[in-house]
Amino acid sequence: MKIFCPKDDLHHAVQTVQKAVATKTPLPILTGIYLSAQDDQLQLQATDYEVGISCTIKASVEEPGAIVLSGRYLQEMVRRLPGDTIEISSSQEDRTIKITSQNSQFNLLSLPAEEFPVLKPVSGDNSFTVKDEVLRDLIKKTVFASATDEARPIFTGGLIEIDNDEIRMVATNTHRLALKKAKLGGGSGNAKMIIPAKILNELARLLSAEEPHEVSLSWQKNQVGIVFDDVYINSRLIEGQFPDYNKVIPAAFATKVQLNTDHFLDAVERVSLLARDGEYNVVKFFFKDGAVVISSNNPDVGKAREIVDAKTDGNEVEIAFNAKYVTDILKNIDSDELIFSLNTPLSPAGIKPVGDDNYTYIITPVRTG
Amino acid sequence: MKIFCPKDDLHHAVQTVQKAVATKTPLPILTGIYLSAQDDQLQLQATDYEVGISCTIKASVEEPGAIVLSGRYLQEMVRRLPGDTIEISSSQEDRTIKITSQNSQFNLLSLPAEEFPVLKPVSGDNSFTVKDEVLRDLIKKTVFASATDEARPIFTGGLIEIDNDEIRMVATNTHRLALKKAKLGGGSGNAKMIIPAKILNELARLLSAEEPHEVSLSWQKNQVGIVFDDVYINSRLIEGQFPDYNKVIPAAFATKVQLNTDHFLDAVERVSLLARDGEYNVVKFFFKDGAVVISSNNPDVGKAREIVDAKTDGNEVEIAFNAKYVTDILKNIDSDELIFSLNTPLSPAGIKPVGDDNYTYIITPVRTG
Repeated sequence: MKIFCPKDDLHHAVQTVQKAVATKTPLPILTGIYLSAQDDQLQLQATDYEVGISCTIKASVEEPGAIVLSGRYLQEMVRRLPGDTIEISSSQEDRTIKITSQNSQFNLLSLPAEEFPVLKPVSGDNSFTVKDEVLRDLIKKTVFASATDEARPIFTGGLIEIDNDEIRMVATNTHRLALKKAKLGGGSGNAKMIIPAKILNELARLLSAEEPHEVSLSWQKNQVGIVFDDVYINSRLIEGQFPDYNKVIPAAFATKVQLNTDHFLDAVERVSLLARDGEYNVVKFFFKDGAVVISSNNPDVGKAREIVDAKTDGNEVEIAFNAKYVTDILKNIDSDELIFSLNTPLSPAGIKPVGDDNYTYIITPVRTG
Repeated sequence: MKIFCPKDDLHHAVQTVQKAVATKTPLPILTGIYLSAQDDQLQLQATDYEVGISCTIKASVEEPGAIVLSGRYLQEMVRRLPGDTIEISSSQEDRTIKITSQNSQFNLLSLPAEEFPVLKPVSGDNSFTVKDEVLRDLIKKTVFASATDEARPIFTGGLIEIDNDEIRMVATNTHRLALKKAKLGGGSGNAKMIIPAKILNELARLLSAEEPHEVSLSWQKNQVGIVFDDVYINSRLIEGQFPDYNKVIPAAFATKVQLNTDHFLDAVERVSLLARDGEYNVVKFFFKDGAVVISSNNPDVGKAREIVDAKTDGNEVEIAFNAKYVTDILKNIDSDELIFSLNTPLSPAGIKPVGDDNYTYIITPVRTG
């Protein structure tokens, strides 16, 4: 193999596939990045068998071929190389790869390219297309609500549902649930799949390109393939039945409270300073006429109390929540004002932006003594 | 106690004393910040018995008094409080301290103020004064060379020497040594003391105020008191005899090589990418006519090689160093060009900015096979 390519493009490609490079693995080949060159293109691939990512860039290919380099060293090296153009060439004899740029020269030992598990694109008729900004927003506003505990795998993913021209994403850890809906804007279809949360978060990061792109998702059995721009991602799907989230969303609320999002977030964060050492990070909310009183009590440190103006419609409610479950959603609400909806101190409450019926967040209260 | 003070001033004071708050201590009182109010002033103090820091700000004192609050909570709380003015008041009955700002109210349990080891200012005739920017530069350019290993305490500090109107700071870990000289600019005197490196680093951080200040240092026995602006720092001195650093500095060098500081730094950092996993992070330097060739070899990963243009005066030298000891000094050289001075492959070398005889860095080579 012998190629020349722009340093910035190579850096972009290494950064893109980096998250799929395995760090803790008994298989050394998975710690590498696979580079294959042909037809004026250089493709990089990495996989940890859970997710595989490839990125294809333009290159001047003098001699096609495939090599595997240590992912860790390649990233650090490419980032620091001088000059605009990088030359990569392999020597069959001593199994080393020469990487040259201006007065810099690295000779890296190659991992055995024939051992690398090259990505097999997901094929099949099941596919749909969505705008990158729509998908990124769906992920950002829901996936934080998923569980980190692997004990119940179904809750460590985000559910994607396609229902004609509507796309919905849902995540829950059973104590709180986030649901966001959007229009597909173009295609239509019917699908239901659960993608691991960490892969969705990585996808959202990669979707932050400056130019808008269409993202295409194809799936078969327990695999999904995601294509956009110069990137291909292959992820396993989480198997199992996602619970019926519609049953979790109360049909009606007796009390509705409108609050300024920033003021409310700041106040909850301050009050939770004293609460977060506790096992459940419990903060109490007293929704009364014209205001909400937020308070916490830590026997070892002291008490905190805040008052935030509110427009209250309905009965007074005194209720307690895990403060983190409240602040998490407040950080994801873009509108100035929000609606906090309640029934009783022991029934689930809802938080949503004012005037937005496409974003729903349900939170279970904490029972206090 | 009952006082009102500007939030930003209180935040500044808490930030200033924070580094002296003990985190791991069997004495709970040392995890607190002592606040004492009298004569329109609020003084904050913290100490871990190694270093004590106080900061005095203006306050409207309605009732003088002294309290001790948890350092950790006070910092987080003050940073997040709304409004411009904070009220702090104590209640004798229930030992709680009320902190109020706009609609926020915290009631914190007080630690017993009478148990706090209030700082005793260092008094005595031994003192000198230096400009903050001079002292900060002396610290920044030398203290990084000190040892982190506590086995030989003398090398975990920076030596300050006052010799008439000259101030010198020296630090070494026995493998490399940094010496920086400056004019006192005003006073004159005679002194020699070793201050712990971590306290010097904290001092440099606190000296980064926008307005220039005079810094006054007074010492007696094993204590030094440092005063500037609204801050007082009390530190222990490291006892023992600092070795005669003049013996370490070679009288003459046979080879002198002039290099571009940035190009040289970038090249050494790239080559050291492959070396730093090794026990000594060894990088080889071949200083030859017109260039220096920098190389490393890691049997598990590969080789790296760089060429940097140089003006060489004297014999060729092939020598090896711990790469970190080279890059550390290069990051502290402000001038575009530097002089690398050498004798033999096994004798100490020197690095200094071109045209600056007040900054000296000596580095011991590594013996290679």
